[in-house]
Amino acid sequence: MHVLATELLYEGKAKKVYATEQADVVRVVYKDDATAFNGQKKGQIVGKGSINNQMSNLLFSYLESNGVATHFIEELSERETLVRKVEIVPIEVIVRNIAAGSFTKRLGVAEGTDLTEPLVEFCYKNDELGDPLITDDHAIVLHLATREELAALRRQALEIDRLLQAKFAECDLILVDFKLEFGRLADGTIVLADEISPDTCRLWDVHTRKKLDKDRFRQDLGDVEDAYQEVFARIRKGQSQ
Amino acid sequence: MHVLATELLYEGKAKKVYATEQADVVRVVYKDDATAFNGQKKGQIVGKGSINNQMSNLLFSYLESNGVATHFIEELSERETLVRKVEIVPIEVIVRNIAAGSFTKRLGVAEGTDLTEPLVEFCYKNDELGDPLITDDHAIVLHLATREELAALRRQALEIDRLLQAKFAECDLILVDFKLEFGRLADGTIVLADEISPDTCRLWDVHTRKKLDKDRFRQDLGDVEDAYQEVFARIRKGQSQ
Repeated sequence: MHVLATELLYEGKAKKVYATEQADVVRVVYKDDATAFNGQKKGQIVGKGSINNQMSNLLFSYLESNGVATHFIEELSERETLVRKVEIVPIEVIVRNIAAGSFTKRLGVAEGTDLTEPLVEFCYKNDELGDPLITDDHAIVLHLATREELAALRRQALEIDRLLQAKFAECDLILVDFKLEFGRLADGTIVLADEISPDTCRLWDVHTRKKLDKDRFRQDLGDVEDAYQEVFARIRKGQSQ
Repeated sequence: MHVLATELLYEGKAKKVYATEQADVVRVVYKDDATAFNGQKKGQIVGKGSINNQMSNLLFSYLESNGVATHFIEELSERETLVRKVEIVPIEVIVRNIAAGSFTKRLGVAEGTDLTEPLVEFCYKNDELGDPLITDDHAIVLHLATREELAALRRQALEIDRLLQAKFAECDLILVDFKLEFGRLADGTIVLADEISPDTCRLWDVHTRKKLDKDRFRQDLGDVEDAYQEVFARIRKGQSQ
């Protein structure tokens, strides 16, 4: 497909989104910029844009082949991908398998605690408010989604968790938790959007429990680039087998 | 009933709880001490203990007579009441009819916004963590209550909201929001516990929308004692009609 460089529709913390010749298709360009703690910490992770783009595309293809509808169309280059244009549902859907991050601080649970069953959280996607945790009732009051959509988000998130846990297990990685975003197509259908990468997933090595994700950046643990490359190498190897 | 002064079982921010001769009955003594913002602001509201005790007892009797099981047994004096001994469920149950307080700050909703339908929130009753908002799944993971108990809390909270809104409306008061605590009797039955007072309810005058509750203390609005007395006078007058 021939793609003209066209209008910048949106620039986020980690990606730019451009219009294309087709009204229902946009081009995503991944950046190396990294932010944490709602933008309070800023930096760069060299090569991140390229890794997140390619890794996301591998995982979105894997999910699609397992029946999950996503926005993915076609990888254009190391950093660029064509995706279906969606209206993002302003809810960050978080799935937790093991306690980590804000969950441990908010609820006083030790990092690494097994949650027995996967736990789905909704946060109101709003930088100004710091993406606060919300209940289903809050989402309704704020007109973020309908009850039916909330049920669909929860159901799809748990199915994606099941599929991703299996995929990462093949790569000797533990999927601790992750954040998903969904979007509405023009006809209202909800599809998985955004990305799945070490920016949006906590991934620990299954043997050493070494953190191989953005927590290395958040917590100044060093070897940030190495961790992203390590994860991508394992996923790509798993893919080619 | 003859009550000996016995062992202090618990001292909270606004109440002391003493054992009695009966293992399943305790004596609650209300204090004038006032705290806000999780104990960061401290003060006294003269006469508050007496008002909160008597007002709570009036409202608990009203709820009992309308089929709501509560811990209330008998008022001993202006500040003292006998109640059934319970194990408090460590969940603060908040019911909101109109947006106010933490809800407006967390979600960016203007104070005074009508919520159309009453909204129930659960918070983890934990001073150290600042009583964080939780979802049903969090309550399960933290072993705070069972799914059946959570459903019962929600159902009872909405029924209590319906009854209290009617009662306060008779007194020209708007029930903006309120916090409930429930307890388990020895056999596991859940009953309403704690108190219902201007410490735990936001109450606005129906005509002027003047705040007649602890927000006058929280926000340094003045006339704090007058507001508590005004609310109690209206409730007592409504009761005797």
